[in-house]
Amino acid sequence: MSKPKVILAFSGGLDTSFCVKYLTEERGMEVHSALVDTGGFSPEELKAIEAKAYALGVSSHVTLDVVDSYYQDCLRYLVYGNVLKNNTYPLSVSAERVFQATAVAKYAEKLGAKAIAHGSTGAGNDQVRFDVVFRILAPECEVITPIRDLQLSREAEIDFLKSKGVVQEWHKAAYSINKGLWGTSVGGKETLTSDGYLPEDAWPTQLTKTTPEKISLEFEQGELVGINGKKSSSKVAAIRELTELAGSFAIGRDIHVGDTIIGIKGRVGFEAPAPLIIIKAHHSLEKHILTKHQLYWKQNIGDMYGTLLHEGQFLEPVMRNFETFLADTQSNVTGTVHVQLNPYQFHILGIESKYDLMSSVFGAYGEMNKAWTGDDVRGFSKIVSNQTMIHRKVNEK
Amino acid sequence: MSKPKVILAFSGGLDTSFCVKYLTEERGMEVHSALVDTGGFSPEELKAIEAKAYALGVSSHVTLDVVDSYYQDCLRYLVYGNVLKNNTYPLSVSAERVFQATAVAKYAEKLGAKAIAHGSTGAGNDQVRFDVVFRILAPECEVITPIRDLQLSREAEIDFLKSKGVVQEWHKAAYSINKGLWGTSVGGKETLTSDGYLPEDAWPTQLTKTTPEKISLEFEQGELVGINGKKSSSKVAAIRELTELAGSFAIGRDIHVGDTIIGIKGRVGFEAPAPLIIIKAHHSLEKHILTKHQLYWKQNIGDMYGTLLHEGQFLEPVMRNFETFLADTQSNVTGTVHVQLNPYQFHILGIESKYDLMSSVFGAYGEMNKAWTGDDVRGFSKIVSNQTMIHRKVNEK
Amino acid sequence: MSKPKVILAFSGGLDTSFCVKYLTEERGMEVHSALVDTGGFSPEELKAIEAKAYALGVSSHVTLDVVDSYYQDCLRYLVYGNVLKNNTYPLSVSAERVFQATAVAKYAEKLGAKAIAHGSTGAGNDQVRFDVVFRILAPECEVITPIRDLQLSREAEIDFLKSKGVVQEWHKAAYSINKGLWGTSVGGKETLTSDGYLPEDAWPTQLTKTTPEKISLEFEQGELVGINGKKSSSKVAAIRELTELAGSFAIGRDIHVGDTIIGIKGRVGFEAPAPLIIIKAHHSLEKHILTKHQLYWKQNIGDMYGTLLHEGQFLEPVMRNFETFLADTQSNVTGTVHVQLNPYQFHILGIESKYDLMSSVFGAYGEMNKAWTGDDVRGFSKIVSNQTMIHRKVNEK
Amino acid sequence: MSKPKVILAFSGGLDTSFCVKYLTEERGMEVHSALVDTGGFSPEELKAIEAKAYALGVSSHVTLDVVDSYYQDCLRYLVYGNVLKNNTYPLSVSAERVFQATAVAKYAEKLGAKAIAHGSTGAGNDQVRFDVVFRILAPECEVITPIRDLQLSREAEIDFLKSKGVVQEWHKAAYSINKGLWGTSVGGKETLTSDGYLPEDAWPTQLTKTTPEKISLEFEQGELVGINGKKSSSKVAAIRELTELAGSFAIGRDIHVGDTIIGIKGRVGFEAPAPLIIIKAHHSLEKHILTKHQLYWKQNIGDMYGTLLHEGQFLEPVMRNFETFLADTQSNVTGTVHVQLNPYQFHILGIESKYDLMSSVFGAYGEMNKAWTGDDVRGFSKIVSNQTMIHRKVNEK
Repeated sequence: MSKPKVILAFSGGLDTSFCVKYLTEERGMEVHSALVDTGGFSPEELKAIEAKAYALGVSSHVTLDVVDSYYQDCLRYLVYGNVLKNNTYPLSVSAERVFQATAVAKYAEKLGAKAIAHGSTGAGNDQVRFDVVFRILAPECEVITPIRDLQLSREAEIDFLKSKGVVQEWHKAAYSINKGLWGTSVGGKETLTSDGYLPEDAWPTQLTKTTPEKISLEFEQGELVGINGKKSSSKVAAIRELTELAGSFAIGRDIHVGDTIIGIKGRVGFEAPAPLIIIKAHHSLEKHILTKHQLYWKQNIGDMYGTLLHEGQFLEPVMRNFETFLADTQSNVTGTVHVQLNPYQFHILGIESKYDLMSSVFGAYGEMNKAWTGDDVRGFSKIVSNQTMIHRKVNEK
Repeated sequence: MSKPKVILAFSGGLDTSFCVKYLTEERGMEVHSALVDTGGFSPEELKAIEAKAYALGVSSHVTLDVVDSYYQDCLRYLVYGNVLKNNTYPLSVSAERVFQATAVAKYAEKLGAKAIAHGSTGAGNDQVRFDVVFRILAPECEVITPIRDLQLSREAEIDFLKSKGVVQEWHKAAYSINKGLWGTSVGGKETLTSDGYLPEDAWPTQLTKTTPEKISLEFEQGELVGINGKKSSSKVAAIRELTELAGSFAIGRDIHVGDTIIGIKGRVGFEAPAPLIIIKAHHSLEKHILTKHQLYWKQNIGDMYGTLLHEGQFLEPVMRNFETFLADTQSNVTGTVHVQLNPYQFHILGIESKYDLMSSVFGAYGEMNKAWTGDDVRGFSKIVSNQTMIHRKVNEK
Repeated sequence: MSKPKVILAFSGGLDTSFCVKYLTEERGMEVHSALVDTGGFSPEELKAIEAKAYALGVSSHVTLDVVDSYYQDCLRYLVYGNVLKNNTYPLSVSAERVFQATAVAKYAEKLGAKAIAHGSTGAGNDQVRFDVVFRILAPECEVITPIRDLQLSREAEIDFLKSKGVVQEWHKAAYSINKGLWGTSVGGKETLTSDGYLPEDAWPTQLTKTTPEKISLEFEQGELVGINGKKSSSKVAAIRELTELAGSFAIGRDIHVGDTIIGIKGRVGFEAPAPLIIIKAHHSLEKHILTKHQLYWKQNIGDMYGTLLHEGQFLEPVMRNFETFLADTQSNVTGTVHVQLNPYQFHILGIESKYDLMSSVFGAYGEMNKAWTGDDVRGFSKIVSNQTMIHRKVNEK
Repeated sequence: MSKPKVILAFSGGLDTSFCVKYLTEERGMEVHSALVDTGGFSPEELKAIEAKAYALGVSSHVTLDVVDSYYQDCLRYLVYGNVLKNNTYPLSVSAERVFQATAVAKYAEKLGAKAIAHGSTGAGNDQVRFDVVFRILAPECEVITPIRDLQLSREAEIDFLKSKGVVQEWHKAAYSINKGLWGTSVGGKETLTSDGYLPEDAWPTQLTKTTPEKISLEFEQGELVGINGKKSSSKVAAIRELTELAGSFAIGRDIHVGDTIIGIKGRVGFEAPAPLIIIKAHHSLEKHILTKHQLYWKQNIGDMYGTLLHEGQFLEPVMRNFETFLADTQSNVTGTVHVQLNPYQFHILGIESKYDLMSSVFGAYGEMNKAWTGDDVRGFSKIVSNQTMIHRKVNEK
């Protein structure tokens, strides 16, 4: 009788390594590991993880590269919507999980596996994101979560692995890092408190440039397509280039405290130079191009898009409606944004766009003013005051 | 027969100086000038403006100090609501106008005047804000706006004043500055374009400190009450102290492009070190203390509070309802926020509060986790996926 | 020298008849009248209005039939969004004005006219709707509003017409009626008060059926396409058929009090049997088919769509974004709704749809329940209580 | 050793009767039953339920009357907010559960019980509402749910009871009824489908009056205080009187399909004559008294208040903030609403209020118009069109 197949979302860390051994040896399963790449791995890292997986005894290992769909199906909407959770966090990690889970679910279907495993603990958001996507896309699959269910200590996991002959040294890094196209999260002992701040050397990207630099970002219909007058080979490439450029100024660091899906507060450091610059630049462009009603509603919908994404609800049908709305607002969000990069900080210098509502086609500001008179504004002021004026009269009786 | 009285909102600049002469000599009115102080004038400046008014021929001049009510009736709600227009601008100037107009309207009633004059031009927001408040609080008064109505050039105004014997030199500053308790606006030739940025020396407050400094801000029920462990003499004083402290780091500068009330886009530079720090610090504190539903609705309501304030609708009854809501959310927004000040930039280091939802009373994080199991989260994930799962099943038919 | 051309939005009533004579004889203009049909006129009525126009001395008269674009570009979105202003009024008249003004503006461009006239008074919403559309679509045209500007009494208008040889009897109907595809408004002396109700005979459509009738409405992607199993010849035809059917039960009457664009409260009676039934039926269908997040956001956006439409802001770019969003939600709003018609009232009996989330494909309700256990719900309840539970613990200290 | 105490939320039906026997005999517990009255029981019914409880073997039984706090702490906010779930359902049952659970949790604390039991099944909303409230108010208590956990059939429950000597005849009513102060829900075989409608005799209250009647409702600060000119003895009494009056016209029936908390769609019939009339009357009054901004925001907040209440989140801190907001809007919602009652239907005739913004103190409508001119409105129209006009010019390039 053949062993049951299980697809394991594998990262190469202690938890998912434990899962391989546990699933193969304790549960008697045939483990097929999958590493889903959302833009945070070098080719060397991917190769090393694959080697590790086979060394641990998986039946097969695959790297699923989802960077393009991650950008196309999600990140661009985060830009359209200027999405920063609580005005702070670009959802660097939150978004990835959905795409990782989706790739794993599809892979399970392809391999005909009836079980999926993930290495999430019971304390955070990721368990829910994985669970939810699997439940929706692969409702017939059993979802196995050994770390959450067994609640083993780190030491117990290491001991178990040793007992299975895995003698690798599992040194615990002082800071846990999660890297992807849309930013890197950093957790450590300071982020477990409310008042600690990450020390300089905990940040993965260090300050290497100190002379301010002016750059320009080209947007086409809401998407970053080039930097400093040079078109990037792809939109993903543009993000990578900006990450490189701004990262050397140590831009885009912050600590976010937010509401986890399970109701507790969680705190996480992150560095996300490209997302923060892109979103502020894009927003600046929009403030010149869109009407006040468009800006208002985009903000409301962008905010909710981010919230549902954060909470693992990416597959909710309303998210497709939100995306359609957001995309529809971008038809003329095209132009150049000038940005100054300084150590640890950037600011927007200005924008140029043929759709700029500030640079009227019918002449200079003076001429434009001819479109109305002082009396028109006086009349406007009277009419917009009417209701409050009447309310006051009626209520002071 | 006595001359008709007019109350003139007076600033001492060219436009309102013109108004004094125009109203007295061309319109035969008895001009009573009023300077409304929202926190942007030194005693010497106030004295000089008064002398100027009398020299121009006003029948009386008064300084109306509204700083306290400006804070109490408006600014604190901007903090409660974390209000930054388009996530950028603390409404430094917008809010002042309403309080200036209100003070002038009340003063007109006190003096029994049946006319009020303001020196606004026809191109901006301020004309509407003055018009609207006068219309509501003093609907029986005639509102006279010589600058808007006559559309005189600067030179014509100067010539007129000269012809009336006012020979002062009206040199035009390269940058027009408006200062108040909640920030200073800066306009100049760069802000008339979409892509110009203000040069370093255009900013009223210059960088004088370069060594980073850690400070702590004490909040009580949402209000800043002290800095670095020392209680301020008043909440207004706390804002002034922080302005001083952070201003020397040249913190809080930006350029905002926004929608004017009259439908055109307008661009303005501003420096507002205290508002930007207070709002981000206050928001950080709230992210630890309030629930996700509270944070969500506060953001929506704070945003609309700022928008209506910006548009001169401060007196709309719904604004009182918003204030009641916002105040009601602040009962336990009490604690200390640690902030690091760097040249041109600041960041939040962390917070301490006995209402912090992150530091549970029932023990450390590990213990807290006992409040639920992995199975509980698994159940949660199942149930929150139900509708999308069913939707998918039904729609893939 | 040729006379200046003016396009007059003509209805055949006293006010616009006055306009013809006034514009031709007092202003020396060449008047081209246009009657824009939004579904409220019979062929005979149209012919009579044309005859009247020529009798008054217009240079040309045209009937502009916009019923199809009125439905296609506006009404269907009111259905998608379930739009009832203040949960009451289907915007029967508000929507028409924009389409009337748009047709007139385009006609003016076609004829090369540089002036447009409308007969609105200064007391209501319509003046703003006409003004706004003309300002946007024909900013170079002068807009002439004789009734608003001259403020003549009814008698003065009649006297003027008599003096010009127009001796028609202008009996004032007790109730002013405005009829269009989306309903009929009724104004009279009762609606000028806050507590009067229209008498039975003031309603244009009288009760003629008293035996309850069950009907079924077919919806395809959010649009009514047929009644009682019979496909209508067009979507406009379906609305007309339902109006006929339900009108004989005197269904769809109400009085709405609302906020006019100019800040005063206005009260109007209306009968709109088809809109009220279609919207409630459509909403019922959606409650079975859409997710709770879709329902929530559709309501918010539909409500704002109606408000901006009511206020004459149909041409605001955000309205196109709203329409895109609303249309995107309708892809599977397809099915049959059963409705019972009673005298003065209707109710929804139920719906059938293959997209109904209540009739699961994976078996009966009991089976479906197997998708989760009591323990799953218990876990769900624990997790969704977490934040409030912690909040309570922390705050009861 | 003493038996462990358990508090059982007892209704006298089959499920909770089973619970008594199960808890006493199978689990060896000391059962204290509590019937929480939210306004749906007569004194005779309460007495009969008590007798039944003791007959089944409870150690004690108590009736907890929460009608007053139910009104004061919840129902009046549903009126202030005009809350109808999906514009249909007054949340007749949803609200009760929270107050029942709260009373039971407090009673458990009073008796020092460490366990609470409720008879909810695993298929609906109520299980979550009970679970959530207990989790928050009595986190240290075990929550026992025999019906949900054992998943017994009706027959199995009856057999078990028989085996324990309870030989009562458990005839299953064709329709399950839940009655409370805010309405009565009706479930039956028709509501289990999407297209069935309840037959006439399934409705608990039958039509007994056919002659239309005009009534008047007195509101004071948003609350119904009297009917037909007579002050009621209490606000709860006013609701009961109106229920009586309108019930005889069979007013207030409908079927609601909604989203359960657990993600499935649920359908329920209800009759709620008083809530539907009160809410529409109150809303009509508000449309005369409040400003458009107040109406807009009240609707948003009222809607969310209802949604969170429906989902068992009454104890969320934001709900207190919503209540504060809603109450703050009611200070002048005082006046009389005239309503006509017809068989199966009612309509609002009109309102009277000294706070009515339609009946201006400064004279009749004609005079009021003097507050602005046609030119003022022309100016208003120009300015409110500005942005769209500019947008069009810029984008037609």
